[in-house]
Amino acid sequence: MSALKMGIVGTGGIARGRHIPAYVQQKDQVELTSVFDQNQEAAKAAADEFNIAHVAKSYEELLKKVDAVTICTPNIFHAELAKQALEAGVHVLCEKPMATSVEDCETMVNAARESGKILMIGYHYRFYRESQAAKKLLSSGEIGDPLVIRVQALRRRKVPGWGVFTNRSLQGGGCLMDYGCHLLDLALWLTDFEDVDQVLGQTYERISRDPEQVNEWGVFDPDKIDVEDHATAYIKFKSGATLLFETSWAANILEDKEVLSISGTQGGIEVFPFSVNTSKHGMLTTSQAQWLPGEKDAGLAQAQNFVRSCLGLEQPRTTAEQAMKTSEIISAIYDSSSPN
Amino acid sequence: MSALKMGIVGTGGIARGRHIPAYVQQKDQVELTSVFDQNQEAAKAAADEFNIAHVAKSYEELLKKVDAVTICTPNIFHAELAKQALEAGVHVLCEKPMATSVEDCETMVNAARESGKILMIGYHYRFYRESQAAKKLLSSGEIGDPLVIRVQALRRRKVPGWGVFTNRSLQGGGCLMDYGCHLLDLALWLTDFEDVDQVLGQTYERISRDPEQVNEWGVFDPDKIDVEDHATAYIKFKSGATLLFETSWAANILEDKEVLSISGTQGGIEVFPFSVNTSKHGMLTTSQAQWLPGEKDAGLAQAQNFVRSCLGLEQPRTTAEQAMKTSEIISAIYDSSSPN
Amino acid sequence: MSALKMGIVGTGGIARGRHIPAYVQQKDQVELTSVFDQNQEAAKAAADEFNIAHVAKSYEELLKKVDAVTICTPNIFHAELAKQALEAGVHVLCEKPMATSVEDCETMVNAARESGKILMIGYHYRFYRESQAAKKLLSSGEIGDPLVIRVQALRRRKVPGWGVFTNRSLQGGGCLMDYGCHLLDLALWLTDFEDVDQVLGQTYERISRDPEQVNEWGVFDPDKIDVEDHATAYIKFKSGATLLFETSWAANILEDKEVLSISGTQGGIEVFPFSVNTSKHGMLTTSQAQWLPGEKDAGLAQAQNFVRSCLGLEQPRTTAEQAMKTSEIISAIYDSSSPN
Amino acid sequence: MSALKMGIVGTGGIARGRHIPAYVQQKDQVELTSVFDQNQEAAKAAADEFNIAHVAKSYEELLKKVDAVTICTPNIFHAELAKQALEAGVHVLCEKPMATSVEDCETMVNAARESGKILMIGYHYRFYRESQAAKKLLSSGEIGDPLVIRVQALRRRKVPGWGVFTNRSLQGGGCLMDYGCHLLDLALWLTDFEDVDQVLGQTYERISRDPEQVNEWGVFDPDKIDVEDHATAYIKFKSGATLLFETSWAANILEDKEVLSISGTQGGIEVFPFSVNTSKHGMLTTSQAQWLPGEKDAGLAQAQNFVRSCLGLEQPRTTAEQAMKTSEIISAIYDSSSPN
Amino acid sequence: MSALKMGIVGTGGIARGRHIPAYVQQKDQVELTSVFDQNQEAAKAAADEFNIAHVAKSYEELLKKVDAVTICTPNIFHAELAKQALEAGVHVLCEKPMATSVEDCETMVNAARESGKILMIGYHYRFYRESQAAKKLLSSGEIGDPLVIRVQALRRRKVPGWGVFTNRSLQGGGCLMDYGCHLLDLALWLTDFEDVDQVLGQTYERISRDPEQVNEWGVFDPDKIDVEDHATAYIKFKSGATLLFETSWAANILEDKEVLSISGTQGGIEVFPFSVNTSKHGMLTTSQAQWLPGEKDAGLAQAQNFVRSCLGLEQPRTTAEQAMKTSEIISAIYDSSSPN
Amino acid sequence: MSALKMGIVGTGGIARGRHIPAYVQQKDQVELTSVFDQNQEAAKAAADEFNIAHVAKSYEELLKKVDAVTICTPNIFHAELAKQALEAGVHVLCEKPMATSVEDCETMVNAARESGKILMIGYHYRFYRESQAAKKLLSSGEIGDPLVIRVQALRRRKVPGWGVFTNRSLQGGGCLMDYGCHLLDLALWLTDFEDVDQVLGQTYERISRDPEQVNEWGVFDPDKIDVEDHATAYIKFKSGATLLFETSWAANILEDKEVLSISGTQGGIEVFPFSVNTSKHGMLTTSQAQWLPGEKDAGLAQAQNFVRSCLGLEQPRTTAEQAMKTSEIISAIYDSSSPN
Repeated sequence: MSALKMGIVGTGGIARGRHIPAYVQQKDQVELTSVFDQNQEAAKAAADEFNIAHVAKSYEELLKKVDAVTICTPNIFHAELAKQALEAGVHVLCEKPMATSVEDCETMVNAARESGKILMIGYHYRFYRESQAAKKLLSSGEIGDPLVIRVQALRRRKVPGWGVFTNRSLQGGGCLMDYGCHLLDLALWLTDFEDVDQVLGQTYERISRDPEQVNEWGVFDPDKIDVEDHATAYIKFKSGATLLFETSWAANILEDKEVLSISGTQGGIEVFPFSVNTSKHGMLTTSQAQWLPGEKDAGLAQAQNFVRSCLGLEQPRTTAEQAMKTSEIISAIYDSSSPN
Repeated sequence: MSALKMGIVGTGGIARGRHIPAYVQQKDQVELTSVFDQNQEAAKAAADEFNIAHVAKSYEELLKKVDAVTICTPNIFHAELAKQALEAGVHVLCEKPMATSVEDCETMVNAARESGKILMIGYHYRFYRESQAAKKLLSSGEIGDPLVIRVQALRRRKVPGWGVFTNRSLQGGGCLMDYGCHLLDLALWLTDFEDVDQVLGQTYERISRDPEQVNEWGVFDPDKIDVEDHATAYIKFKSGATLLFETSWAANILEDKEVLSISGTQGGIEVFPFSVNTSKHGMLTTSQAQWLPGEKDAGLAQAQNFVRSCLGLEQPRTTAEQAMKTSEIISAIYDSSSPN
Repeated sequence: MSALKMGIVGTGGIARGRHIPAYVQQKDQVELTSVFDQNQEAAKAAADEFNIAHVAKSYEELLKKVDAVTICTPNIFHAELAKQALEAGVHVLCEKPMATSVEDCETMVNAARESGKILMIGYHYRFYRESQAAKKLLSSGEIGDPLVIRVQALRRRKVPGWGVFTNRSLQGGGCLMDYGCHLLDLALWLTDFEDVDQVLGQTYERISRDPEQVNEWGVFDPDKIDVEDHATAYIKFKSGATLLFETSWAANILEDKEVLSISGTQGGIEVFPFSVNTSKHGMLTTSQAQWLPGEKDAGLAQAQNFVRSCLGLEQPRTTAEQAMKTSEIISAIYDSSSPN
Repeated sequence: MSALKMGIVGTGGIARGRHIPAYVQQKDQVELTSVFDQNQEAAKAAADEFNIAHVAKSYEELLKKVDAVTICTPNIFHAELAKQALEAGVHVLCEKPMATSVEDCETMVNAARESGKILMIGYHYRFYRESQAAKKLLSSGEIGDPLVIRVQALRRRKVPGWGVFTNRSLQGGGCLMDYGCHLLDLALWLTDFEDVDQVLGQTYERISRDPEQVNEWGVFDPDKIDVEDHATAYIKFKSGATLLFETSWAANILEDKEVLSISGTQGGIEVFPFSVNTSKHGMLTTSQAQWLPGEKDAGLAQAQNFVRSCLGLEQPRTTAEQAMKTSEIISAIYDSSSPN
Repeated sequence: MSALKMGIVGTGGIARGRHIPAYVQQKDQVELTSVFDQNQEAAKAAADEFNIAHVAKSYEELLKKVDAVTICTPNIFHAELAKQALEAGVHVLCEKPMATSVEDCETMVNAARESGKILMIGYHYRFYRESQAAKKLLSSGEIGDPLVIRVQALRRRKVPGWGVFTNRSLQGGGCLMDYGCHLLDLALWLTDFEDVDQVLGQTYERISRDPEQVNEWGVFDPDKIDVEDHATAYIKFKSGATLLFETSWAANILEDKEVLSISGTQGGIEVFPFSVNTSKHGMLTTSQAQWLPGEKDAGLAQAQNFVRSCLGLEQPRTTAEQAMKTSEIISAIYDSSSPN
Repeated sequence: MSALKMGIVGTGGIARGRHIPAYVQQKDQVELTSVFDQNQEAAKAAADEFNIAHVAKSYEELLKKVDAVTICTPNIFHAELAKQALEAGVHVLCEKPMATSVEDCETMVNAARESGKILMIGYHYRFYRESQAAKKLLSSGEIGDPLVIRVQALRRRKVPGWGVFTNRSLQGGGCLMDYGCHLLDLALWLTDFEDVDQVLGQTYERISRDPEQVNEWGVFDPDKIDVEDHATAYIKFKSGATLLFETSWAANILEDKEVLSISGTQGGIEVFPFSVNTSKHGMLTTSQAQWLPGEKDAGLAQAQNFVRSCLGLEQPRTTAEQAMKTSEIISAIYDSSSPN
């Protein structure tokens, strides 16, 4: 079988740090054929670093050279670039979040449906070995019906002040768009994207505006931040299950925390690290995973799934329809938030 | 100064385990004068155990013998008993929750106002040394404005199947009325009972209905439970601050958890155990309390405050007006909940 | 139902420290009616301490006053005393080990069979909550067929130099008879007393003979010790399963160790503390018991089972037939041992 | 002094991972002159990787080019290859186990004796710093006479399904031949190869035959395994000392365990990590090694000893006579085992 | 043998909490015959609490009734009371420090010498099991010559504001007299009271004078404190060994610290908890005591030694000559200190 | 701005391991222009390793080629080399200790003053992030006046037997000159070089003279050591503050220890790891730094400060005047020491 021709659009940190190296590790199945970036120098530098033969002068040029494209641009461009690719018959792996509006997500889903091409969204947290094990466990029914889901994606004082992360016009939001969306999507996927009844949320732009602040990830200009650095939400599903959500770049907490915990009628699960609380033979027991199967590097596992899906060897594990549901909740959180 | 004459109404576990022993330790300021219980045998047994001279035949008889009364009956009777006492010129310490409806709370507040007597509600968590320290810290402004408040009052599989705890008609609810209300009240008190914008919650009656369940606090009849064993809520204040709330008698979690955590603009605090996360001299620092001043036994500290308040020596630290606000939120959680 | 009349023969440490207090806690079902000891003063002292009305002048006198007797004498007397009691129509709980020879065990089993009375042996380790849970787990088949069983009942330098423990003519042996037999019996019971193929063992009388030794349980005369202080054995079952056994009063190890571990084809179990190693959903998992049902005090649980068995309310959980099999292995260990 | 000319026969994992790199680190004393492997491509690849000038076409050719040879082939070939080398006047370091039968061992010992050349067996565990320290301690007499020796060489679910490890006709056995022999040999060496009285053992081929199993070291075909994955044994020495032995590739235990523990009359020792339990000044004490002298890399230390022995600078620390005794016990374990 | 008749002078906390209960536990060898205190009510209360028959009206009266006396008064009275007792032919156990001046110590030593009676000083730290073991170890020569001795007797913010502790005219000093002297004496005893070359020290009265301070042992009037709450010193012995000393009631440190550490030419020792650092077989080793012989309660062990010494059954383990040397260093520390 | 031309004199371990790599990391501000070493081969090797163009034949030749020089020779040469450089108008970073006598230090200070050039001493411990934070904290006054300062710079059995470390004629002393001086200087700097009242110290040359010793840093000839391997001291400041000091290369302690602890009137600080003990809101609190700002590599931070100081961009953080005060105390310790 001939290798998949892959293009990269947007050659910033996420492209160079996660996607390109992952493709490089699968040389027998995928070939990096072309890169494109508005900033032609950045594109050239990436091509040099990874020995990619072609630097496209336009996105259109790139699309002609590839079977599939990985979109690594600011969020605002996701929808248009994905649509163009799909219409050109090119498979798409688009970085998360899917887009900055539900309308854009719908555009993308429709384009994928019409083209018959693959559209995957880069929620790579689903590919962690713990996530895969949790999915199996929940599907087995061992913990019964999920009742309460707790999500905390919290960093202590680590605002990413560089690049576009704090620029609302390019990214559509802050820590929720950048970081919290991963664990939210993971929680929704694990619980099968139940129908949502109500969403109530609140975003905050206070801590990172403090001119005297201490920030572990370096100094930045607090006046240039126009996105939230902290958000909370409460999601009630039609089943009655509820999800307590919190994400932050800059929380005043002891240390970074990544919690996804689900309490069900028969048992409970913590995903990171993986443990299960249930009862057996009259005992209350707690089970820890001592060893988990699968690929440790979630980014690599995602790349493998995308490449093999394009080659018709397996199904994508992150569908656009699902990712749109995650985006619907993100939008609902922003919408229900009052200024702060 | 002559000792305060104290009566007890309701001689169940909370009276014999917390209130009476606390009064016994303050013999120079308070004298246990009379007890009353619908169940006369229970009243007699309590009087014998603690050498209380008088067992009243009616609540009216008790009220004639005392300066103050401590109400330890099922929740449904709180309002009426408090009103009677206040109208009779008797100070009242009423166990939490204040009452089972906001209307009842109003009745109590009004009765207190008209009588000029003291009405305190038994939210003794406010008297923990950690709570007192947290109050001082928050008042000092060191952690800035509170943004996110997290409350978890969770027990693993410990449904109190005995007594009246699981009887809705007597108690008005389950774990929220019995346990979660303590940490909710504490969170509200620490943040100065800010004005509430929205409350959204959900209660659950699933786990304790399972006939095969394992319960650490003994076997009970799952068909006789008609209260929630788990509840979650999200409270948004007009200031934009939000409170993520969860309480349970029966959660499928690793171990019991009692969390009250407040993240503010300048710092964050964990109340149990007491620690503060903030920044100083360019560092991120975490401070732990190695020693805390005050009385370790919160029930005793509460009793001392009530007795000394009745004697005019200090102010009550848990006012009825505050406790009513806590009850308003409890009611709002029940009201916003869909059947589950 | 009238209470069971219980007698005690032998009022040494095990009677006063375990059996009598356990009966005292079940006053509604059992009445301590009479005690007997060769040493009449000791019998009198025990009767005084626990308010037992009658001190028998002879064992025969005692047997006339009771429905059941608990035998707490040196091991050498177990068989004869049990036989006498059973022949007199009295139920027997006999301390472990059952007897000092397999012939004596047979005598006891026969006497029980003929009398139709209950004969239980005091292997109270079976009544630990962990043991009960392990029995359920093994019965469930979750760990598959047992392959390797590891038993370590080891104390560091704690020879019980007082009393009769180190007197071969009264006890029949040392640490194996006194301590190791408990974990051996437990291992055999958990694995359903499989048919034995071969036993090879070795006892040691070296460490406690050292005149310069350090002993945590006090000074004793090393010349008066004539029993083993350490023993090892290997038991091969007809199924192919093997049991690696070690017990000691005086091992030169870091700290005391009580290990019972069973590796099976599908999983493995550690009994103290209780944990299970198995695989699930492709993971290797380890489960710990966070809470176990049942009575914490194994001696009390044993007494309850004996009393209720005598009253016809339940079945004895330690039968004489089983205990005889444990004694057969103990004898085989001694027999296969060369002098040391 | 001119460097020793070293040849390698068998260029699989053990040659490339342990022996060749160790020789490369001693370039001033040893020169890798020639390699040979039945699989000429493998030999060529190894030569390329390590810059070895000559790839022999036959073993005979290799022997002509070298002063010493390191045998890294499947076990079944050890004896013949060693004999050939010794007869050709070439020193031999042969990987463990020495051979697959005691007869083969005798052949090797005789060949070595007749040739006057060195024959060392690759029990490199003796070269661990802890092993060297243990040897000194035991020789000093501080722990008195050894009574009980405990050996556990256990891995949790890590069957090496690749290569020849699970092929009986090439290796002569499974985990005992591959892994357990190291700790058995170490225990025997530390206790001076006492005369053996009895050996009783049992091997198991159950866990790795399960088609549904979870294996941390990768997937393999359970139908192709024809060696034991677990073994236990009990060795009684004429001195009365006993050795409790267990080894496994696939045990259902919490985590991998490598235990060598010796309890003697005056003290006890744990080899990994190194600690000593004894008594002093009336205390019970435990001593831990905070720092140990010598080379950390046991494979390198072994290579240094072999090279320097061939050069006449020191004595081999692992003699063929000793290794034959280890093989005698291995054979006795297999012989005493019933089918399982 | 008839029991020793013991009197107590000074019935404050140290008498009631340590000395009297210790004598009560040795009823077969000692009889509490009489008590005396300037405060007759206190004496009466102590006599009632411990069933002591006689309350003396004067010290002279007490001395007539007893064979031995235990002096528990403020330090300033030690010398005169001890002298009177010895002159009256009464043995003396005098609480530490021996006296408030070296002259007073000499008076006491002389009185003891002339009377031929026993004079012991209550440095009960010497009776800790760790201290006894350390003494044996140092005597054995295993750690070689002591070079550096480190003493830290530090409490965090625990000024004993009650009683006479902070009253210079009664006690002669603060934390050095009350607490630090114990570990100083222990260090000197362990190293055989080597000849002193130079003493340089400094006392502090700063922390406890702060009116805003936090004190874990309760509130006191900072203006009434006239003793040091912290002291450091450096003692150089003629051998060249040096002792680094620090003691405090009120140090701003993480937690209380009681360190006595001795580094010698061959090894080092930490006394609390007991461990030894040395080298053996080429290794660096650290030995911990897992079990120590002797009486855990140092106060009881001291009382036993005093009583048995008075009865002629053993020698006092704390002689007046030694304690005087400790007092000489204490005085030298005060003398070399500048005002602070 | 043109880069600073830097020369290196003395190309031993400290030059190649710390200084040269630090300059290499700041290529935009500093250029390594020339190196000189008495041992021309060593100089050549260093130049090759780091691509330094010029190897000077004499120090004079080097001085002509550079703007600044880093002195990395044995201590005895520091003063003369620094003086020459300063007189030649070349800035100087001289390794610690400043010199081997106070007179030499004065010479250096004077030369710097006259030349107007920068003279920094390589006390790089001041550049640790913890040190910088401690300096800010002490300056803030939060811990009040320093009372007691504790310094321990202790290694367990790690004598640097190679090179010149143990050569008194080249280095002027042993562990105090090599290692202890760092923490002494840091303590003095943090407390603002208070005026010294008295210094009393003692050095030891015992442990490293033992021919049988175990040394973690390799074997050496104990007869060739003529410097101290252990030292203690007590420094009393005019303010009354005292400093307890200990340093060693070879102490018989559990593990290496690097302690700098300051107890003040209001609080206390531990520098490594960084924590502060104080009181707040009536509590005793302990604060730990969870994250510290600044450069982790203290050697790099020092190089940056030196280079930028030479370029006029900032002030040196280690002045010669301060380092001379440290040397004065080092000299006073040696002077007050008796032979040992």
